[in-house]
Formats: sequence, structure tokens, C-alpha cells
Amino acid sequence: MADRDATSFFISKLQRSYREVRGRSIELARPLTAEDQCIQSMPDASPTKWHLAHTTWFFETVVLMKHVAGYVPFNEKYQYLFNSYYEALGPRHARPMRGLLSRPSVEDVHRYRHHVDEAMLRLIATADVGTLSQLEPIIVLGLNHEQQHQELLLTDILHAFSCNPMRPAYASVPAVHADEDIPGEIRPVQWLRQAGGVLDIGFGGQAFAFDNESPRHKVLLRPYEIADHLVSNGEFADFVADGGYERPEFWLSDGWAMVQREGLKAPAYWIATAEPAGAPCCLRVWEEFGLQGRHPLVSTAAVCHISFYEAAAYAEWSGARLPTEFEWEAAFHAPGIQHMTGHVWQWTRSSYDPYPGFRPLPGVAAEYNGKFMVGQQVLRGGSIATPKGHTRPTYRNFFPPATRWQFSGVRLVRDI
Amino acid sequence: MADRDATSFFISKLQRSYREVRGRSIELARPLTAEDQCIQSMPDASPTKWHLAHTTWFFETVVLMKHVAGYVPFNEKYQYLFNSYYEALGPRHARPMRGLLSRPSVEDVHRYRHHVDEAMLRLIATADVGTLSQLEPIIVLGLNHEQQHQELLLTDILHAFSCNPMRPAYASVPAVHADEDIPGEIRPVQWLRQAGGVLDIGFGGQAFAFDNESPRHKVLLRPYEIADHLVSNGEFADFVADGGYERPEFWLSDGWAMVQREGLKAPAYWIATAEPAGAPCCLRVWEEFGLQGRHPLVSTAAVCHISFYEAAAYAEWSGARLPTEFEWEAAFHAPGIQHMTGHVWQWTRSSYDPYPGFRPLPGVAAEYNGKFMVGQQVLRGGSIATPKGHTRPTYRNFFPPATRWQFSGVRLVRDI
Amino acid sequence: MADRDATSFFISKLQRSYREVRGRSIELARPLTAEDQCIQSMPDASPTKWHLAHTTWFFETVVLMKHVAGYVPFNEKYQYLFNSYYEALGPRHARPMRGLLSRPSVEDVHRYRHHVDEAMLRLIATADVGTLSQLEPIIVLGLNHEQQHQELLLTDILHAFSCNPMRPAYASVPAVHADEDIPGEIRPVQWLRQAGGVLDIGFGGQAFAFDNESPRHKVLLRPYEIADHLVSNGEFADFVADGGYERPEFWLSDGWAMVQREGLKAPAYWIATAEPAGAPCCLRVWEEFGLQGRHPLVSTAAVCHISFYEAAAYAEWSGARLPTEFEWEAAFHAPGIQHMTGHVWQWTRSSYDPYPGFRPLPGVAAEYNGKFMVGQQVLRGGSIATPKGHTRPTYRNFFPPATRWQFSGVRLVRDI
Amino acid sequence: MADRDATSFFISKLQRSYREVRGRSIELARPLTAEDQCIQSMPDASPTKWHLAHTTWFFETVVLMKHVAGYVPFNEKYQYLFNSYYEALGPRHARPMRGLLSRPSVEDVHRYRHHVDEAMLRLIATADVGTLSQLEPIIVLGLNHEQQHQELLLTDILHAFSCNPMRPAYASVPAVHADEDIPGEIRPVQWLRQAGGVLDIGFGGQAFAFDNESPRHKVLLRPYEIADHLVSNGEFADFVADGGYERPEFWLSDGWAMVQREGLKAPAYWIATAEPAGAPCCLRVWEEFGLQGRHPLVSTAAVCHISFYEAAAYAEWSGARLPTEFEWEAAFHAPGIQHMTGHVWQWTRSSYDPYPGFRPLPGVAAEYNGKFMVGQQVLRGGSIATPKGHTRPTYRNFFPPATRWQFSGVRLVRDI
Repeated sequence: MADRDATSFFISKLQRSYREVRGRSIELARPLTAEDQCIQSMPDASPTKWHLAHTTWFFETVVLMKHVAGYVPFNEKYQYLFNSYYEALGPRHARPMRGLLSRPSVEDVHRYRHHVDEAMLRLIATADVGTLSQLEPIIVLGLNHEQQHQELLLTDILHAFSCNPMRPAYASVPAVHADEDIPGEIRPVQWLRQAGGVLDIGFGGQAFAFDNESPRHKVLLRPYEIADHLVSNGEFADFVADGGYERPEFWLSDGWAMVQREGLKAPAYWIATAEPAGAPCCLRVWEEFGLQGRHPLVSTAAVCHISFYEAAAYAEWSGARLPTEFEWEAAFHAPGIQHMTGHVWQWTRSSYDPYPGFRPLPGVAAEYNGKFMVGQQVLRGGSIATPKGHTRPTYRNFFPPATRWQFSGVRLVRDI
Repeated sequence: MADRDATSFFISKLQRSYREVRGRSIELARPLTAEDQCIQSMPDASPTKWHLAHTTWFFETVVLMKHVAGYVPFNEKYQYLFNSYYEALGPRHARPMRGLLSRPSVEDVHRYRHHVDEAMLRLIATADVGTLSQLEPIIVLGLNHEQQHQELLLTDILHAFSCNPMRPAYASVPAVHADEDIPGEIRPVQWLRQAGGVLDIGFGGQAFAFDNESPRHKVLLRPYEIADHLVSNGEFADFVADGGYERPEFWLSDGWAMVQREGLKAPAYWIATAEPAGAPCCLRVWEEFGLQGRHPLVSTAAVCHISFYEAAAYAEWSGARLPTEFEWEAAFHAPGIQHMTGHVWQWTRSSYDPYPGFRPLPGVAAEYNGKFMVGQQVLRGGSIATPKGHTRPTYRNFFPPATRWQFSGVRLVRDI
Repeated sequence: MADRDATSFFISKLQRSYREVRGRSIELARPLTAEDQCIQSMPDASPTKWHLAHTTWFFETVVLMKHVAGYVPFNEKYQYLFNSYYEALGPRHARPMRGLLSRPSVEDVHRYRHHVDEAMLRLIATADVGTLSQLEPIIVLGLNHEQQHQELLLTDILHAFSCNPMRPAYASVPAVHADEDIPGEIRPVQWLRQAGGVLDIGFGGQAFAFDNESPRHKVLLRPYEIADHLVSNGEFADFVADGGYERPEFWLSDGWAMVQREGLKAPAYWIATAEPAGAPCCLRVWEEFGLQGRHPLVSTAAVCHISFYEAAAYAEWSGARLPTEFEWEAAFHAPGIQHMTGHVWQWTRSSYDPYPGFRPLPGVAAEYNGKFMVGQQVLRGGSIATPKGHTRPTYRNFFPPATRWQFSGVRLVRDI
Repeated sequence: MADRDATSFFISKLQRSYREVRGRSIELARPLTAEDQCIQSMPDASPTKWHLAHTTWFFETVVLMKHVAGYVPFNEKYQYLFNSYYEALGPRHARPMRGLLSRPSVEDVHRYRHHVDEAMLRLIATADVGTLSQLEPIIVLGLNHEQQHQELLLTDILHAFSCNPMRPAYASVPAVHADEDIPGEIRPVQWLRQAGGVLDIGFGGQAFAFDNESPRHKVLLRPYEIADHLVSNGEFADFVADGGYERPEFWLSDGWAMVQREGLKAPAYWIATAEPAGAPCCLRVWEEFGLQGRHPLVSTAAVCHISFYEAAAYAEWSGARLPTEFEWEAAFHAPGIQHMTGHVWQWTRSSYDPYPGFRPLPGVAAEYNGKFMVGQQVLRGGSIATPKGHTRPTYRNFFPPATRWQFSGVRLVRDI
């Protein structure tokens, strides 16, 4: 009987998680029109509608089609349309052309979600314990996958709106984390001393974590100091005003090439305002475009939408450096440290390499993380757009160093 | 009193034309969802919604803002968003980014149309005779401009749908010309002998015509023979099966480079079906994608969606040649000639050059035609997508020689 | 005996022509080092060495290999390396990679020329009359072909040197036409009235002409006035100083796009000097880079190295227009007209289209002209770099409208 | 007196090093014609002549102009032409246009070298001890810099020759390391067990090393096994024949995209021979193009000219993995290990990141290594093209993961 209770608790917890996560995707899309949900502003971004369908495709393909006898796919063509990058699951619609899919409509995609959700909830409710304990990891992976796309949905629509001269606001304070803890003033950095030594890094628990956080292993760190808070807009504006984007000595070579090639002058969504044409960098006044629309730059908020190159150049200018991902993880619980999650993802000086002994998940999920382990930098933490509860201290986010459309910022460390 | 009658007849005719043309644009968009109307599948094409707004912007900018005291623009930003290429009318949204404008919505654009239509009809109804006779040419230009965009609306959505693996049908037989006169069988060409000589070419009447059709002037032609009907799909399939796309001897140099670079094997929307992988060209079976969706190739219909290069290569293969635009115009009323309009635009061997004595229209309309007179070929006739009554025997359509997404085909001539 | 005399006169004339033309190519390359002769500064240009080899390949492939029994090619691989664009003669080395051919060396190419020249002169000396009269047209074509490459050799090395910050001079006054007839001062244009009417256009003689000059045919022209002299550097500098490159109203659409995209401010080899950074166009002082190196702009010399777009914009600004190629040809012998050849090629308003009844030469030479008849503009006249005696009043040169590295300028006409 | 002896020994050693290294560059260029030395086959490669001049520019700019009063540069323009990427040393000729510099000639560059060598040797011979001990590190850096360019000279000319259908041989066995120790047969791998633990990594000696090898620091390694020898051509051919380039499951995502985009089928200079068109991968027979020209693939030699992606895919296919750079360095002196240097550079799984506590050299040399520390992979070892004595066990070479034109191969490790 205890067993039956445990099983039914397990089932109802899984059902609740499934409903919550799936429901939140719909919530996030609610402020958007059908047209908003259709557009793709660059190859790296995807339409809202595509995110809604692709996360559904994941459950259909990886769970239902493999584990439910007689399951009939909602639409055969969706297998092709909504595969992202899984070579083992067949050919797929070219990524840069996702924005041309006016059909299926948003309503079709909602119907698709409904169809799959019903089948998934039925499976969870009716599967025997053995099956369920086998399926639970892949279902939880699917939910974490969907949470990742929830953040992408926001970063992608923000980029799309930034391309529209009307500058529409996504405008949904409740849809994202409250920002109430933005400090009222810029405080000097407190440098928190960390002893280093041989430390355990990576995930070692029983709950869910991505394969790239494993295996937990020992890393040898030298002593260092870490900033108690994130670099703020105001601090970054000092770098800009000091000619930060005009002085190659602060930049990695690839970063300087990007600054020159794309004419960068400030973080991605900063807008120079009220400046005479050709005003020098020290006289510019900035506004920022964000999910709430266009507004004056908030000096005390964390600087956001910067590439790894800009983070590294800022660190060089300031006389400090970026943390490695190990230093960041080791300081997660340091007394006095603030804003480790919930504000901006924090670029680290670590390339996205496999941990010693890393092996990808078996089966389809093998393509989830491992095959991207080259040419990217690790970000740690989590942003205002990250679903609550999605990240962990060991969580490894990763993007190419030129990436600017994510909610990415910077925290500094120093050698002792 | 006769004068008053004439004026009110003139007014009501202009009102009726305005309402008819403007209403037809809405009709053409009706089978499309809001998402369909938002997408842009290549830089040369535009979203349906953009066509609806741009044609409205033309009336607002060129008529209302210049001729109605106190007119308040519907939205200041639309001046920037919906200008196409008029340098004299200020900066504009980049053409390849038209598909990112999820806002304004289709509904906003309908409201914009309504706002402008009310102001236009009020202006027509209330202007004094002097003003009206001054405005009428520019209004009629605006209506002809809108008709051109009506055809583009169809060509552009067809291209967009062709990029969607679901191959949606625009599916609206009543929305386009009836095709009932497609011949039941492929008949041998009748060569219609034309005497040539010194002939008048270009528009010389009182009604509306574009500036590029003027001035009417004399051209000296040698005798020639013109085909009574268009090259059909079946005839073109013979060219394909004879290795037409694999034999450089038929092709202009730029055309052959395009065939190689883009791997062309057939007209734009032909789809090889039921063929073993790598089957030789002579064994392929073709379907065609069109406004009605995907269907087997109709052998007797005119070949369509070919570039100038393909038209010229076909002509070379067949031992004939393309007509000059003068030969085409001179044969317009030749006894026995068929399908000069209403099927496909017909590529001519004439570059799009100014007629002797050509001067662009004064004012804003100067940019309408003249500035495009280089690097393009003239097409004559009119297609199933051309609004009824829009073309004339002297009408000069023009596109770059690589263009394939228009309803473009071919008619042959021969020297005598 | 008269016959024998005629034959030997014919032979010795052909031998003399062959030696003269072939010798001049070597002369033109003499001021250049082996390294100079190897480089290719853009895909449209070719290395000097390649010109020397390709013109030789033409004689080897089209004459010797087809007409000399037992002829052994100098090197089998040269067939592949030195074919330019003849599809019928097999595959070929990619055009943009001609500059990577450090081997064969210049000396190898000289040996190749020597080998072919000996075989050619032996053939001419020993062929029977029947063979020779059959071969003479193709030999003369080969010599005219080589003369065209002699001009390209100069345009191409000038472009290559313009990419070198050391700005080397080709420096060879005797290698190009004397410029002694550059006027001492800029004179006002004399407009020479031409009556028009039905005129004969194209080549009708017995001597050599290219196939694109035929057939001679009648063209109907309206009366017009043609400028007695070419537009000078000084006149063009007035256009520049008047904001010519900053005012879209003068430009064809494609031309304005090129101005914007490439940041054009003046003709191709003009160099702004002694100007404060960002000086307005009206204050710039110009130097020019040419075959003699860098020197102050000569106001009275014909403006050179302009594209068709710039020629057309200048004409628009000046209130005149470009001549059609027919108007140009018809005015060739107009009393008082100057500098029709020997200074700059003159852009015409005529697209490069086939003449009525045009058929390409049979055989390999079919690819010589006809397959380029789209997307190009006709230039007439001849430049300082054109070999003496190479052109005719009916000669049609052609280049895409964006071309700037040729010796191309402009002469105006006006409607009456 | 002992001091005077020490000083003169120090001076003569520096003179000897200088003469040896500088002389070897000339030796390496000797088999090449002036034309060979001028060409640049891709933006990442440089002409031989440019290498000869740039290494000279380094001494002139960094030593002579800063430390010799009254030194007159050989040619002011060379400062601009031969700067590679030093932002602090002013603007420079665009990298992709180095191949257009027919001037200065090879002879000019030799004169430049002579001029600088005389000034350098005079400086070394006449400087006082204090100056000399201050200059010695930068001179030694310059010599190591020149040795790096000696290897690039060979990789670059090999790439250039590979673009020439004549496939010229650099052909100079004595110019590169003897290959006499290529095994006679492919032996099974011996896996050499390494204990791991906390190990010292990086350079800690007194002699010269690059800044990127410092500081020496402790790294914690898990136990592993390393292959005693390099992956051979024969072993790699098995991977190819097993469909290695056609099966995405072995590849990193960026690597698979490169395979698809560029149609890769084998290492960079392998040439399929004697195969029926479209033969399956398992039936291909391979030749290889190298410094000695084209020859049959030597099965027992180390596979070369593969990218990091190919190295990683091979490792995945074989069931092993790539070593980290730390694992590689720790195993350098492992008993039984072979071919750690002198054959091919060995790709490691380590991104090119700074060592803990790394600071770039002060002054101009700051740009030498540090600014490239992103987006690249570390290679260890040294190749047949690396100058003898140039590398160390701690030496870190680095290239982007797509690089194929270097002498790069692979050695495997396994977890225990």
C-alpha cells in the first residue's frame, strides 16, 4: 500500500510537472499575435510557434512514437518540420527557413500540443510502474528541454522586435521574473576571497541534471577573489565612455575583428539618443530596448546582451578577469555573494569542453549536448528569462563567443 | 449643366475605379491567414501585408499629404516602413527585412487602408474641378501601381508557399483568371508571317499608360514570322528530356553559369516525381506547384516560371529565336495569333532601354520606371495573375534575366 | 605567275601580321617582372602571363591541333589551364584562380609561345593555297583576339598595381599611344547636328570584322546633336564637386546601389589628396593613378575609368544623355568631331543585343561573342590601350555596366 | 676577464643563432621561383616572400627602430606592408591581399633582409652588456617567431601548389626532416598506462619559452592510457572506408556541417584515384599530395592534414578519445612512447585557454599569443616542417578546429 501511495505520488508529481511546464510555454506566447509567433529574425533564432511545436515534437518522437503501441502521429510532415538538429531522427527543415512556415498555423500548433499532451498524460496515468520508471528520465529531460526553449522564446522574440522600427514591447512584467532586487545604487565591488584547492565540480546528486554536468570530478584551483555582484550598466557605460569599443588593446583578436566588422559601439540593445551626429563616445546618452520596450538605461541593473568578447574586454579594461566555470561554481555559496542566478547568464573564461570521463546519454539524447562541445564558451547562472527552478549551481549553458541576443552579462574575478 | 453632368460622371467613374481596384487587393488577400500575409521568402518578394500597406502609402504620400490641407498621417512611422524605393521620399525600411514586420498587424493595415480610402474618396467627392483634373492622373497612376502589386502579391505568396514543405495551396480559382481556354492538345505551331517595315511603336492614346511606353515612335523592322501560340509545358518537357539543362551550347554564358551554380533542371516549380534517384533527364516525370497547389503537369498549358535564360535556351534548341519587343507589339493584332495576354508574360530579346525621347514623369513619379532601365529584359503580354484590363499592347513589363518567380513564359519568332 | 605573286604576297602579309601582333604582346609585357606577370587582382582580371599563354592556346587549339597532322601539343595540361570560357573545348581552370599559377613560369610561357609561333609560321609558309584561304579567317580572328588581350593586359596590370600601396608605375610611354593631342584647355562643347533617318549600321566590308558587327542593317534614327569632344576630367570634377556622388536623382537604381555599397566618390583611380578628413566633396583635390604612376589630375584629358552608371549619372546631371551605339556610329565621320578613337572607350545607352539576323560564327568561334549578349552595355571607339588599327567605326566593345577598370569614358548627345 | 669571456661567448652564441635561423629561411625559399614566392592561395596563408619580409620587419620594428639611435628604415612603406596583426604598431596591408604584392620583388626582400641583418649583427657585436642582456630576450623571441614562419612557409606553399593542376613538387627532401623512421608496417597500438594525479604543467625553466606556456602550474589528472604511436594513414583509410565521412554519429556538430558544406571525403591532400565515378567510399584508392609531389599513400606514415573535427571523429569511431593537452604533456617522457615530435602536430581536446595566472608579455609582444585565446584548439608535438630544436614538451601550438593545411594528425588516449 505504501508502494501504491508512492507510485501515485510519483505519478501525480510527474503529471503536475508536465502540466506546469507545458502550460508555461502557452503563457509565454500569450502576449504575442499569430504574426509575432511566425517570424524569424536571424538563423540562430526561431519563431515562437516553432518553439511551441518543436518541444511537442520531442515528446511525440522520443516518447510516444517509441513507447505507445499504435500511436498515430498528429501529422507525418511535422517529423520533418520540427526536428531541430537530431541527425539520428532523420532529415529536417533548414534552420534559416523556419520563419517561412506560415502553415501550420498557431492554432494548428496548439492542436498539436493538445493532441500530444493528451497522449502523454494518458501514458503517465496508465503505464505500469516499470515502464514509468523507465520513461520518467526522458520525460523529465523533455520538460527541461522545453524550459530551455522557454528562455529562447523570449530571447528570440526580443531580437525580432528589435528589428522592427516600431519597437514593440513584449510588455509582460508578470511573464518574467520580478526585477525588484535591482540595487538602488551602484556599490563598490566587494572582493570575496576563495581559497581554491582540490574541489568537487559537477553534478553528483540523484535529481535531474544534464549529461554535460557529469561526471562529478575533482579540479585543482588556485586562490582567487570573486566580485560579490554583477557588472552594472553604469559600470559598463564607463567602459564605453572611456573608448572601450575603440581601443584594440582590451580585445581578443576575434572580438576586435567583430567590433570593426559590425561597427559595435555598445551592448546589443543599447540605443544612443540625443546625441549630435558623430558625437564622441564619452558624450553619448543611452536608452535600452528590452522586453518592456524602450526605456532609459537603468544604471544599477546588470549589464546584459553582451558577447563573450565584450565581457572579456571589459574585464581587461577593469584590471580583473573572467572566472573559469570552476571558479564560478566553487563560489556559488560564498557568503555575501549576490545575483548568482535570476539576473543574467555570466560568461566564463572556460571553453565548453567535456568533463573528464564524460559520455553522452545513450540513444537519441546523445545528440543533446556532447556534439556541441567545440567553439563555444560556458555561461553560468541563469537570467530573468530562465524558468524558475530550471538551473543549478552545476548548470552549464553555452553559446559561441559572438552571441549577443541572449541575456548574458559578466561577473569578475581577480588573482590573489 | 452638361458640364456638371460630365464632372459628376467623371467623379463617379473615378470613385468606382478606386473602389474596384482597392477592393480587389483585399479580395486577393482573403484566402490568406495573418501569418501567410506576414512572411517574405526572399529579398525580391514582399509580404502580402506589405503590398497592402505600400499601395496605401502611395496614395497617402503622393496625394493626401501633398494635396489635402491638414491631412494627418495615419501613423508617422508608416512613412518609413512602407516606402519601397523612392529616394526623394526619404529613408526606408530595408527591403530584405520586410518579413520581420509582425507589427503593424494585418488588422492595423486594414485600418490604415480604411483611413486612407475614406480620405481619398472624400477628396474625390469634394475637390473642385480644377484640382480634380490635376489629381486624376496621379490617382490613376496609383491604381495602376496597385494593380501591379496585385500581381506581385500572387507571385510572392506562391514563392513563399513553394518554400513550405507542406506545399499549401492558395487555392482560389475565382481569384485568378479562368484557364478554360487551355487547349485540349498540343498543336503544331502556325508561323504567322509579318511584313515588317517602318512601324509605330509605343503608346499614343489619351488614356492612361506608363511613361516607359512613350513616346510613340517609328521603328524599322525586317520581315519575320511569329508563332501563333505559346510554348507549352509539353514542348518544354521535350527540351528538358533532350538534355536541355545539360548542354551549354544552347545557353547564354550568364544563363549557363546560373544553371551550374543553382543546379537547375527544369522550370521553377516543376517537381520531379516517381523517379529513381539520379534518373537521367529523359526519364523524369513532372508535377507542378501552382496557386492551386501541387498537381501533375498540364502538357497543353503554357510553360511558366522560366527565366529569360531558359526562354532563350529553349529558343536556341528549337531553331527559332525570341521576338524583340517591337516584333511582339507589331504582331499583337495579327490574324490567328492567340494567347497574347492572360496566360504568361512573354520574355523578349529586348533589353529594357528608354524609347527615343523618353523623359520620366515629373515629380515623385520620376522614380517609377526610368531608373530601372538597365540590366533588365522586357516582357510583354500579361499573365493569369495580371488584373483584367491592366495591360495594353504597348505595355512593357521588365525583370532581370534570372527572374523565375514571375508568371513568365515564351513565344517564338523566326527570321524569314 | 600573277597568281603565284598574289599568293606569295598574301602569305608574306599574313606572316608579317602574325609576327607583328605576336611580337607586340611580348613588348607590352617587357616592363613587367615575372612576379608582376603572375598576379591576379580580381576575378575579372587575368595575370599577364595568362594572357600570353591563353592567346597562344587559341592558335594551338583552334588552328594547329585541328589542321596540322601529327602536331604534338607543347603540354597537354595547358589545354586545361589556358582555356578561358570555351565550353566546347573542354573543362578549364577556374577563372578566379588564375593568379595561383606560379607554374608554368613566364619562361615556360615564352617557350610555349615560341613553339606555337614556329608551328604557325611553318604552316603559313607551307600550306597549299586552298588550305591557307580556309585558315586565313581563323588566323586573323586569332590575331584580333590577341589584340583584345593586349588591351586587357594593360587594364589588368593597372588594376593590380592600384592594389599595391607602393603604387608602381607600368611606366612605359612608348608602350601606349602618344597622348600629345590632349587639348591645352577645356573648350565649350560644340554640338554637331545629325539628321538621323534610315541609316546603314554594322559592318559590310570585305576585311575582317567580328561577327557581332553583322549583319549590316538599316536603323531609323531621329535627329540629334553630338558633342564634338569627350567629357574631360575637369568637367567631371565639377560633377563630383556638385555632389554628384551624393545625389540619387542623377542615378540609375543599380548605379546608386553601387555608389552606396562601395562608397564611391569619384572615378576608379582618382585619389583625394591634401584634404582635411571628411572634407566636403566640393573641396577635394584629386590625383590620378595610371600607367605612368600617380600624378595630378590632368583637367583637359578625357575622364576615364568610369562605369556606365557614372557616365549615365554625369549625362543626367549635365542635362544631356548618352548616345545609342547607332547614333555614335552614324556620327563617326561627322565634320568637326574629335577623339572618336584612341582616347577612351565611350559608353553608349545601348544594351549589347544581337543585330537583326545575327548568327554566331560556326564552330568553336561560336562562343566568341554571341553568348555574352545579355546584361552588358556597348562601348564604342577605342582607348589609349587599344592596339593601333584594331578598331573600326562599327566595332562593338561590351562590358557589364558596373565595369570601372577599363579605359572607359563618355561622350554626350542631345535630342533636338 | 672571466666576465669578458662570458660576454663574448654570449655574443658569439647569439650571433650564431641569428645567422643560423635567418639563413635557414633563405634555404627554405631556395627551391622556389620568384613567382612561387609571390602567390597566396587563401586568406589564411601568406606568400613566401611575405614571410621573408615580415620576419625581417619584426627585427627592424621591435629591435632596430626602438634601440638603435639614428636607424633609418630600409623603406618606410614596409612598415605598412609587412605588419601582420600588431594593432599597437599601426595600420597594415589587408591580409587577403598579400598575394598582390608583386613589388617589392624577391630581390628587394633579400636586400631588405641583408640591410636588417647587418644592422642586427652590428648591434649585437657593439652593444654594451647591459643593453645586450636587455635585448637578448626580444631577439630570441624574434628568432623563434621566424622559426614559426619557416613552418608556415612550407604549409603555405604546399597549399598553393595543391591549387595548381600541374601539382608541382616543392621537392626538397633535404629541406625537411628525414622521414626515415616511418615504420615498415602498421603495428597494433600499445596503450601506455599513465597514473595521473597532481602534476606540474607548463614551462618552468630558464631558457626561452613563449608566454602562453606559463606559468607552470599544477593540474589534477585522472589515470589514462595513451597510444604509443600516431594514427597512421592506413588506420585512417579504414575509417574512410567504413563510411567515416558519411555517418554523422561520429562527428561534432560543427564538424559534420563542414563535411556537408565542403563535401569532404578524406584528409586534405588525399586524391582518389582509379575509381569508377561515384564509387562507394570502401572502394577508393588513394594518393597523397605533399612537399615531394603526388605519390601513393604511405599506409604506415602518420595521417596528416586533418582538422580537429576529423581527428575527433576518428577517435569516436575507434572507441577512444583525444588527449587533453595536459595528458599529452604528462606522457611526454612515458617509456615506449614514440613520435611525440617530428612527424605531425597532434590535435588535443583542449581549447586554447590561458593558464591560471597567465599574463601576456609586456609591450608589443603582448599581442603575440594572448589575444588569440578563444575559438582555437591546442596542438602539441611538432611536425616534419617544424625547425629542429624549435619545440619543447610544453610547447602549445594552436589553430581553429577547421584547419587542414597544417601538418596536423592525431594520437589517441583512453580512460581507464
